[in-house]
Amino acid sequence: MATTHFETVPEVAADAAARGPDLVVMKFGGSSVADTEKIKDVARRLVRARDEGLRVVGVLSAMGDTTDELIRLAHQISARPHPREYDMLISVGERISNSLCAMAVHDLGHEAISLTGSQAGIVTDTVHGKAKIAEVRATRINDALDAGKIVLVAGFQGVSADSHDVTTLGRGGSNLTAVALAAALGAGACEMYTDVEGVFTADPRIVPDARKQPAVTYEEMLELAAAGAKVLALRSVEYARNHGVRIHVRSTFADAEGTLVVPEADVLEQAIVSGIASDTGDAKVTVLAVPDRPGIAGRMFRPLADAGIHIDMIVQNVSAEGHTDISFTLPKADLPSAEPILHDLAREIGAGGAVVDPDIGKVTVVGAGMRSHPGVASKMFETLAEEKINIQMISTSEIKISCVISRDHVDAAVKALHKAFELDKTKAK
Amino acid sequence: MATTHFETVPEVAADAAARGPDLVVMKFGGSSVADTEKIKDVARRLVRARDEGLRVVGVLSAMGDTTDELIRLAHQISARPHPREYDMLISVGERISNSLCAMAVHDLGHEAISLTGSQAGIVTDTVHGKAKIAEVRATRINDALDAGKIVLVAGFQGVSADSHDVTTLGRGGSNLTAVALAAALGAGACEMYTDVEGVFTADPRIVPDARKQPAVTYEEMLELAAAGAKVLALRSVEYARNHGVRIHVRSTFADAEGTLVVPEADVLEQAIVSGIASDTGDAKVTVLAVPDRPGIAGRMFRPLADAGIHIDMIVQNVSAEGHTDISFTLPKADLPSAEPILHDLAREIGAGGAVVDPDIGKVTVVGAGMRSHPGVASKMFETLAEEKINIQMISTSEIKISCVISRDHVDAAVKALHKAFELDKTKAK
Repeated sequence: MATTHFETVPEVAADAAARGPDLVVMKFGGSSVADTEKIKDVARRLVRARDEGLRVVGVLSAMGDTTDELIRLAHQISARPHPREYDMLISVGERISNSLCAMAVHDLGHEAISLTGSQAGIVTDTVHGKAKIAEVRATRINDALDAGKIVLVAGFQGVSADSHDVTTLGRGGSNLTAVALAAALGAGACEMYTDVEGVFTADPRIVPDARKQPAVTYEEMLELAAAGAKVLALRSVEYARNHGVRIHVRSTFADAEGTLVVPEADVLEQAIVSGIASDTGDAKVTVLAVPDRPGIAGRMFRPLADAGIHIDMIVQNVSAEGHTDISFTLPKADLPSAEPILHDLAREIGAGGAVVDPDIGKVTVVGAGMRSHPGVASKMFETLAEEKINIQMISTSEIKISCVISRDHVDAAVKALHKAFELDKTKAK
Repeated sequence: MATTHFETVPEVAADAAARGPDLVVMKFGGSSVADTEKIKDVARRLVRARDEGLRVVGVLSAMGDTTDELIRLAHQISARPHPREYDMLISVGERISNSLCAMAVHDLGHEAISLTGSQAGIVTDTVHGKAKIAEVRATRINDALDAGKIVLVAGFQGVSADSHDVTTLGRGGSNLTAVALAAALGAGACEMYTDVEGVFTADPRIVPDARKQPAVTYEEMLELAAAGAKVLALRSVEYARNHGVRIHVRSTFADAEGTLVVPEADVLEQAIVSGIASDTGDAKVTVLAVPDRPGIAGRMFRPLADAGIHIDMIVQNVSAEGHTDISFTLPKADLPSAEPILHDLAREIGAGGAVVDPDIGKVTVVGAGMRSHPGVASKMFETLAEEKINIQMISTSEIKISCVISRDHVDAAVKALHKAFELDKTKAK
């Protein structure tokens, strides 16, 4: 089956079942291909998998700072580079790394072929810079695999269905390429090779006795990613969940098993809490004394959304004397574009002004088991109270609780929560 | 007419006549696109031509040392990079420069689109590294031109007809792309922008009063290129001659007219001698006391040809006592691979040994007019004799005479010949 429409999920699953687990997609991030020696290491890994009898598809990111260098060139030419041409430009980095890796595989005595996104049949819409994958026409990949070749696919890019232009998939694009290929080809696993050993119960730089998790659910991974865990971008996890692709996050530089990201049914011992995440990239904005009228929140957030600013948590205080304070968080990097908008806004809606606090952090407790175990929230609040950490904002979902606190307290909070939920103890799971 | 088969030359000519002279192909070499400022200059030139009402196709080489850097990476990976993957790799430089130029054109308020060789319909055979253009399927270019866009085509590359792999055209490949597009699109002119102002009567670094030629014939240009003039590679001139494409060699950094390279019938005042070229890149090899038997020359040159070594001039002395000396020239860069072959060879055929002289140079007098004007050769030999320069080897064609002399005498020989044939006098033409 050469063409897989992603609208038809059951069909993909059938394809997967038909092809079975003898096919693996192995994706290597930028740090795994930083120089030609590392690319040779990647080639050895691909060859080892092939020697074990697997059909092997590799997806490599661009080497080190290649893409940054291309972006620099574009901005020397133009303040606002034309989107189609920008995609044409910044997609070459993956073509370089994947062709180099194919050469290295050949030198190890195996056949390899590198394919651009277009040659690999990654068909997208025409939204340059953040295209969506519409379809994978895997004929050429399957032909090469049938011929015994290791197939290398340039990540992060595709070709638009109607205009046949090169498109790029945006941040985390190579992960998305890997997951989409795993879905279309029915791979037994999508292995994500990275510079960490897997998904940990907390950031090991903050909590030295954090443990690597053998498995987490898609939902947990999504919450962890949203809460600041850098290991996998949201989009690729969502795609994997929607298409039933099993992800294995593991280290490029070690042979140990990493962390499986799988459906909830496949996680045998469900932890109540599976990890603590933290993020210090956001700032808090409070718009003071907002007139408490219907429609005012919509009017507040529309201009920020139009400016492409992503708002995370929003809290509205109890109204007093017809006025209320509204607080929200947004990426610190967006403050320069957000502040003039906020200034105008406060005047227009007759608010008392806007106060920005960049010195905040968010700590998040994630666990699929908390659905059936009440008391996680109260334990979290108690733990922070014991550490004399003031909670400024709270946000919850079915399987996570996030608190905004002072930035200075983030590390202490993560350590205390990791201990309180006994994540340092192997058997606590 | 979207598809032009180059086998059918008359058809191309008809196409050219139909489209007329309102279309120009403008090709810019590596030094013309060395940095982003220069690329913006190129964009301004393209826009100026568009503003004059022309349909404009630009062909840009890769920026500065981009391709050398990619080659360096390939050789870090492999001593003998796989040819398909090597082409995939080294073709990205042109994609970078052309997409950057398209961005710059957009910023000047015009529409532009950059196309890879594949997108531009440059269909080749599968000989990676020196593919031949089989066909230009110009549908996409013509559609973009019809929409008023400036079309930028990545030079030096195409796509193989049967395997749909990226191919490269070898040295001078971007010139070839430009000429092939000019033929397929029926362009009024193929303008080659370079760092010299045109084709000169001699290298101005050797002869300060050398003059820029208003026009030379294809045949003269071919002989000049073969004799060491760097301005245009042989292949693109041959292609232009075979398809009737008028070339205009001119400077990127000045607005003056350059030199037209055109059919002989179009050169109004035919010079007897149109230029003096010199080349110091070759070495002379003499195989001594070769047994004078039939088949011996074939046996001598076969192993050198098999090693890919290009032999230029060959001179065989009169035989004496059943033995003869055979001298020939070959690129100095090929000496390391040629010497062991020559050593084995001399022993096998029972010759007296091989002597290598790297300190030689070749001076060549070129002129289509010498067909009808005898006496050019004798004047050349007399001039060199007056300068007390010894001639070691002679080679002639219908429109050129080459002499191998001592390397130290090359500059003096060029100066003396330039004066003797009155190339310093404008009216001498």
